Amino acid sequence: MALLVKNGEIITATDRYHADIYCEDQTISKIGHNLDVPPDTPTIDASGKYVFPGFIDPHVHIYLPFMGTVSKDTHTTGSQAALVGGTTTFIEMCAPSKGQDLLTEGFELWADKAKGSSACDYSFHMAVPHFDSNTKDQLREIVGQGVGSFKVFLAYKNFFGVNDEELWNTLSFAKELGVITTAHCENDEAIAQLQAQLLAAGNTGPEYHEPSRPISVEVDGVHHFTTFLQATGAAGYIVHLSCAAGLEAANRARYNGAEVYVEAVIPHLMLDKTYAERPNFEGAKYVMSPPLRTKPNQAALWQGLRNTDVNTVATDHAPFDFVGQKDMGKDNFVQIPNGIPAIEDRVNILYTYGVMQERIDIHRFVDAASTQAAKIFGLFPKKGTIALGSDADLVIYDPNHKETLTAANQTMNLDYRGFEGFEIAGKPTEVTVRGKVMVDGGKFVGDSSWGEFLAREPQY
Amino acid sequence: MALLVKNGEIITATDRYHADIYCEDQTISKIGHNLDVPPDTPTIDASGKYVFPGFIDPHVHIYLPFMGTVSKDTHTTGSQAALVGGTTTFIEMCAPSKGQDLLTEGFELWADKAKGSSACDYSFHMAVPHFDSNTKDQLREIVGQGVGSFKVFLAYKNFFGVNDEELWNTLSFAKELGVITTAHCENDEAIAQLQAQLLAAGNTGPEYHEPSRPISVEVDGVHHFTTFLQATGAAGYIVHLSCAAGLEAANRARYNGAEVYVEAVIPHLMLDKTYAERPNFEGAKYVMSPPLRTKPNQAALWQGLRNTDVNTVATDHAPFDFVGQKDMGKDNFVQIPNGIPAIEDRVNILYTYGVMQERIDIHRFVDAASTQAAKIFGLFPKKGTIALGSDADLVIYDPNHKETLTAANQTMNLDYRGFEGFEIAGKPTEVTVRGKVMVDGGKFVGDSSWGEFLAREPQY
Amino acid sequence: MALLVKNGEIITATDRYHADIYCEDQTISKIGHNLDVPPDTPTIDASGKYVFPGFIDPHVHIYLPFMGTVSKDTHTTGSQAALVGGTTTFIEMCAPSKGQDLLTEGFELWADKAKGSSACDYSFHMAVPHFDSNTKDQLREIVGQGVGSFKVFLAYKNFFGVNDEELWNTLSFAKELGVITTAHCENDEAIAQLQAQLLAAGNTGPEYHEPSRPISVEVDGVHHFTTFLQATGAAGYIVHLSCAAGLEAANRARYNGAEVYVEAVIPHLMLDKTYAERPNFEGAKYVMSPPLRTKPNQAALWQGLRNTDVNTVATDHAPFDFVGQKDMGKDNFVQIPNGIPAIEDRVNILYTYGVMQERIDIHRFVDAASTQAAKIFGLFPKKGTIALGSDADLVIYDPNHKETLTAANQTMNLDYRGFEGFEIAGKPTEVTVRGKVMVDGGKFVGDSSWGEFLAREPQY
Amino acid sequence: MALLVKNGEIITATDRYHADIYCEDQTISKIGHNLDVPPDTPTIDASGKYVFPGFIDPHVHIYLPFMGTVSKDTHTTGSQAALVGGTTTFIEMCAPSKGQDLLTEGFELWADKAKGSSACDYSFHMAVPHFDSNTKDQLREIVGQGVGSFKVFLAYKNFFGVNDEELWNTLSFAKELGVITTAHCENDEAIAQLQAQLLAAGNTGPEYHEPSRPISVEVDGVHHFTTFLQATGAAGYIVHLSCAAGLEAANRARYNGAEVYVEAVIPHLMLDKTYAERPNFEGAKYVMSPPLRTKPNQAALWQGLRNTDVNTVATDHAPFDFVGQKDMGKDNFVQIPNGIPAIEDRVNILYTYGVMQERIDIHRFVDAASTQAAKIFGLFPKKGTIALGSDADLVIYDPNHKETLTAANQTMNLDYRGFEGFEIAGKPTEVTVRGKVMVDGGKFVGDSSWGEFLAREPQY
Repeated sequence: MALLVKNGEIITATDRYHADIYCEDQTISKIGHNLDVPPDTPTIDASGKYVFPGFIDPHVHIYLPFMGTVSKDTHTTGSQAALVGGTTTFIEMCAPSKGQDLLTEGFELWADKAKGSSACDYSFHMAVPHFDSNTKDQLREIVGQGVGSFKVFLAYKNFFGVNDEELWNTLSFAKELGVITTAHCENDEAIAQLQAQLLAAGNTGPEYHEPSRPISVEVDGVHHFTTFLQATGAAGYIVHLSCAAGLEAANRARYNGAEVYVEAVIPHLMLDKTYAERPNFEGAKYVMSPPLRTKPNQAALWQGLRNTDVNTVATDHAPFDFVGQKDMGKDNFVQIPNGIPAIEDRVNILYTYGVMQERIDIHRFVDAASTQAAKIFGLFPKKGTIALGSDADLVIYDPNHKETLTAANQTMNLDYRGFEGFEIAGKPTEVTVRGKVMVDGGKFVGDSSWGEFLAREPQY
Repeated sequence: MALLVKNGEIITATDRYHADIYCEDQTISKIGHNLDVPPDTPTIDASGKYVFPGFIDPHVHIYLPFMGTVSKDTHTTGSQAALVGGTTTFIEMCAPSKGQDLLTEGFELWADKAKGSSACDYSFHMAVPHFDSNTKDQLREIVGQGVGSFKVFLAYKNFFGVNDEELWNTLSFAKELGVITTAHCENDEAIAQLQAQLLAAGNTGPEYHEPSRPISVEVDGVHHFTTFLQATGAAGYIVHLSCAAGLEAANRARYNGAEVYVEAVIPHLMLDKTYAERPNFEGAKYVMSPPLRTKPNQAALWQGLRNTDVNTVATDHAPFDFVGQKDMGKDNFVQIPNGIPAIEDRVNILYTYGVMQERIDIHRFVDAASTQAAKIFGLFPKKGTIALGSDADLVIYDPNHKETLTAANQTMNLDYRGFEGFEIAGKPTEVTVRGKVMVDGGKFVGDSSWGEFLAREPQY
Repeated sequence: MALLVKNGEIITATDRYHADIYCEDQTISKIGHNLDVPPDTPTIDASGKYVFPGFIDPHVHIYLPFMGTVSKDTHTTGSQAALVGGTTTFIEMCAPSKGQDLLTEGFELWADKAKGSSACDYSFHMAVPHFDSNTKDQLREIVGQGVGSFKVFLAYKNFFGVNDEELWNTLSFAKELGVITTAHCENDEAIAQLQAQLLAAGNTGPEYHEPSRPISVEVDGVHHFTTFLQATGAAGYIVHLSCAAGLEAANRARYNGAEVYVEAVIPHLMLDKTYAERPNFEGAKYVMSPPLRTKPNQAALWQGLRNTDVNTVATDHAPFDFVGQKDMGKDNFVQIPNGIPAIEDRVNILYTYGVMQERIDIHRFVDAASTQAAKIFGLFPKKGTIALGSDADLVIYDPNHKETLTAANQTMNLDYRGFEGFEIAGKPTEVTVRGKVMVDGGKFVGDSSWGEFLAREPQY
Repeated sequence: MALLVKNGEIITATDRYHADIYCEDQTISKIGHNLDVPPDTPTIDASGKYVFPGFIDPHVHIYLPFMGTVSKDTHTTGSQAALVGGTTTFIEMCAPSKGQDLLTEGFELWADKAKGSSACDYSFHMAVPHFDSNTKDQLREIVGQGVGSFKVFLAYKNFFGVNDEELWNTLSFAKELGVITTAHCENDEAIAQLQAQLLAAGNTGPEYHEPSRPISVEVDGVHHFTTFLQATGAAGYIVHLSCAAGLEAANRARYNGAEVYVEAVIPHLMLDKTYAERPNFEGAKYVMSPPLRTKPNQAALWQGLRNTDVNTVATDHAPFDFVGQKDMGKDNFVQIPNGIPAIEDRVNILYTYGVMQERIDIHRFVDAASTQAAKIFGLFPKKGTIALGSDADLVIYDPNHKETLTAANQTMNLDYRGFEGFEIAGKPTEVTVRGKVMVDGGKFVGDSSWGEFLAREPQY
């Protein structure tokens, strides 16, 4: 199976040039002009288009039992939505809850769900919701099977959250194994108490979600996580950082010697807290944690993204229907399943509102949406760039495509769209995964089971 | 019982003037020149001397069962040492450990020990080592008896320390009652793990005490405590802050709306970590928590003291003999009873190295060593100033006294002196407590049971 | 001339107690109860009222030739307005412009204007608009006559402003003489260029005053001034700091070793920039420099005031009529005479919106509006407190007085009121200056030439 | 002229892979395996070696009349030293002094000196030491000839330095033309005064150079420059930033919206101020401005380099002999010609102490020493990467070469070596410039006039 992509403008985290790309055996084997290829090689003409490396979303949830329901996307629908949006690899979280078996109710369960069901490539973060006598052996086994990163929660105490001893042990063991630990940084106790106070005062609507998780409580989480990183020497990655003060705390930690990376998610970059305050329970569509913040916090995240203080842009895709799922919290914002669906829209939104509006340049765009995730999570150079030997994951991108996003046209399996009504100024026309065309003319045309599990090596 | 103090230069947190002071009924009743007083009124001639309000040490331990032993001073010896050093009031901590009854094994036990045994006046902070169904009633009772402040530990997990739920509940209840909560801010888990690592590596000497409690771990505690203050709206007071980064964190919290006060202790201001690194286990004399830090941290505390970012200067007096007590940790620094004795030396050291070396002015000296403590802890205006109606607690101070501190000459009941060999440039000659002369010619001459319990009202 | 003030509640920067005050020979000679005074001593009954030390405004302009006009108040009207508002001492700036003789066109001119015309006491800051071969001798002479402080401008380049060499020389010479240097911190060049750009674009209204002097330009001034303080070792005082970022810069400078004090003015604390954006040229009433800022900057100033990061609250009183003076800038905001009149309102506004709204306590109020200014500028203990030997400058204050401020009722000689429509919750009923009653029943009743020049000694 | 580089491991700012590179017509035309090239193509075997893009030094002085002497290197010697050290392009400063004609005594003079004399490619920054009626026309002409960047000095007032008006005008005009302005950020006046004070006190040795230019004075420059960048909207680049506080100031400016890049130089990263304190006037070898700082400042620069807060690593190469030039300042440190030679050593030192000691990874190394300079200064993609169409500037690098640097072996035309005695752990074996082999076996073998002037387009 060979493929020739001709006449495109190749853009990576560093480079920009015109050339043809020849793919064989799922990888890129030649880059040049007038390449000598077999005469009937299937060819994509990328004239007038960009050729980006396949984008990587390092933070998605596909199968997610959460708050008494299960997220809407399957690996089939989620992976196709990802591809249509230019994402050729995602990293999902294996999310056993406290007390469940990490292996059988965690990694193996998620691996089974994904196997043969994903159109795009995928990998896993392993959630560590507790740390008992059995945990080290199980984690060693899971890492050995190619799961090169852990996930801890300082929030969701009784469900996913770890206490200080579990946090220290997880980080120490991660350091020993050479894996990185990703973290949801919000102090659980403060949230639980503030939720109870708000509800007791009759404040039950989605507009009270943000006040129940104020910035100070997120910053406390960031500070605590990075303190433990520093003390254990482990490498860490803060998921979905939402605020200026949290970013300052992360930056201080770096200067104090912590090895820590920061992720922003596309909803925090684009949507402010007024979305969650929309009347008639519409706000519930925009309930995620940490919550949407004020505009000055968004500006700080964009500036951090420009400076590389924010390393990656992900989604925290966690799709729940407005009718039948979000409305479980009709009378109590605490019961609203958390999540804003974005797997299909991240790349186009970031291109439109980042690159086209000159908040970041086109290389930082590729870097944040693909290359950095590949490097931080051990997928590089297989993924994350266009270079000899790398997987032939290519996004042929029309930089002049105009479209208004709407639920009616989406691939995601959901009854609303997080970015409903947003204009985009570019879109993938063709997308390949390991040399196979998965999207053509903007539509999914591929093999729905083409996706492979990506085993990752410890590298820290 | 009347007393006239003549010809002195009265110095308060604000004022400085020459006048005579007449005391009746334990309080100050007239301030002026050529006062009309009964002819045979006992008189102190304060010519050439300063007259300061009695100094207040808001952080001392007299009776302290800790780490398997009990602190050396009794209320008799400790209070006399205090008075010789110019301190006329101290606030001791009622320190029941986790699971003990707050009333019978806490407040009542400490109140009994002190009653009739203290030469100077005293009050209590109530430690809250747990928070169960009984706790609210007990704390309400204790506050009702005049204990207007709580104490929580983020360190010493199994002994005194609280978890997040206990911390939140304590602060919320403090807010409800209107009392302030003092806090020892160091993250326990990190310390426990670092201690274990150091010991496992054979690093058992007192010089490893500081590395086992690094600055980042203290800053984490400061950040966490002030986050909870902000979220609960409670007022807080950070005891013995030791480092520049901790002070920055406290200052940020203030600008973010937390009501928080900061205490430095005289050992952190004067002694750097090389003291704890002295050979032949001498370092053990200088083991306290948080530990002694590097000189730049000391400079930051002095600057904070000048700016009023540091509100008070206390001691954390916790006296343990070098022989027989400190040496319990001969083979394991974790077993060294924590504490550097200072109750007798705080005022003179602060005067000598603060005022005389122009780090702070003489009013800030009085403010930090007396007035602020009185105001923060509800003793003002009874204590903390020289004004009509205030208690006649007066320190007649010779600003030209030169002396070298040495264990042989101390009043503290201890086999070493924390500030051994330090020069002082001033000293109290006479000290009164409620109009009664307790120190004369620099020696204790008073009634060893004159001290009274100071009941304090909630004020926050 | 004796005076007895009975039954009041005396409140100083530190103390609070009930007592009677007896004044003889212009000073306070006795404080106590049931004082033995001559039977027919004139007496003020202060029952139910506070007795504050006379307030000090360290930053006022009375005679001010500026921008082609002269400020409206005379020493007669200005000093009476001050007294009615509780201010018993002000420090005015001798303001020769660049090239004028510092002695004859500076200090002597201002001293002559004030002499015999002021009802309250007064002192001077000496502006230094240039530094040539003659300057040292002249400044030495002026300091010798009791002017213990300089003033420099980093703004108003061609009129008052100094270049770097003049700034360094002034600070070095101030250090040599032991005087403090006050500074207006805004970078002149940036302002001049931004003004030109705005005008060129047709933006001529008062709402463009703030954009012509953005925060960054003030912070640059603060940073530059404090850098030079650090390098010369001179003491400095930043007048009318208006913004959070400027306060952060000043705080950093303190921690880096600069001796620097910070003043906020009551307009910056209370009025945000929307005042200067009022339609129909009304905004011109609120044009001062640095300009009014956004609300978050106000909040930071209040917090700084609470923390003592902001030392004093002054006015920068500079009174220009709306009709006939402010309207000189009808077609060009640069021509609007700068200033918001406040000398009469500072104390009542700070009491009402500071103390009554719990932003600061009543002692910090006295400290910021009186004591700190006295201490920083060498007026203490003659001024700034209530203590034996201090001047009998007393403000008998009714803490229950309600009034709405309006131009019709003001003492200031002006056709509008800066705080028009503001409610106040307290007001002086009687005010004395050196034992003489100047205000009674809230009205000026005194001798309009009672005010004396206060010579101040170098103290740095 | 074709060239084949075979079997190397290609490393760019992003990528890392094995491939062969074929160069034709001075550029890279094919990248792949088993390339189809003419049989007798000259070939370099890069087995076991890295192939880096040619390194770029964006801050060098070759011809530099300064402090009464002229720097030692000629374009011939300097460019050969550059090449031996892996630098294939440098940007030199055209440095007319105040009052000299920018065209004839500036750009044209430097262009003439370089033309035909440089072995490597080169470009220019245009110094702007004054701004008069003629300046705009001249700068427009110079930019038109391909000089896409300006240089301003806040230091060296009478020689190169600009006042505020000149600074504003230069930045405004740079903004209009779309060019970036580089800046030496130190406040001149403070330095001049401190120098005079030190000399007056008899402190004449090189160890007083640092105290004459303290960190606060550099930070003032950074703050001032970035304030003007923000206010004008111009893009800026801070050369040779030396300290932690300066980097913090630059980072704050970025978050406030300034477009500013930061350069560190290899001497500041590696050498602390004790070098300039070496006895027997040895310290003079290490006199540059800003001066060498303390170790914690070095650590902050490395951390900033890791974070991309520091964008580039340059040299500020300014070579003056120890005997005959540096010793002009034997009796007066102010007379010591400033500069530490490093053009030959930058790349190897950064590789050894950055990459090998894990302070930065190998991609950040290429980025900081080549790619970022190319992008910031408009040389990209011609220079700064290995990609189709880019100039064939290749550095074949032996990552196992061990050598001790010493003056005896250097190519630089100088009687001492800045990094004398330092070990390096890697070195270029072959270096090409536009496909031509200039270094072989670690020695210069090329055409000494091969270097071309690189005209750069405005891009801001």
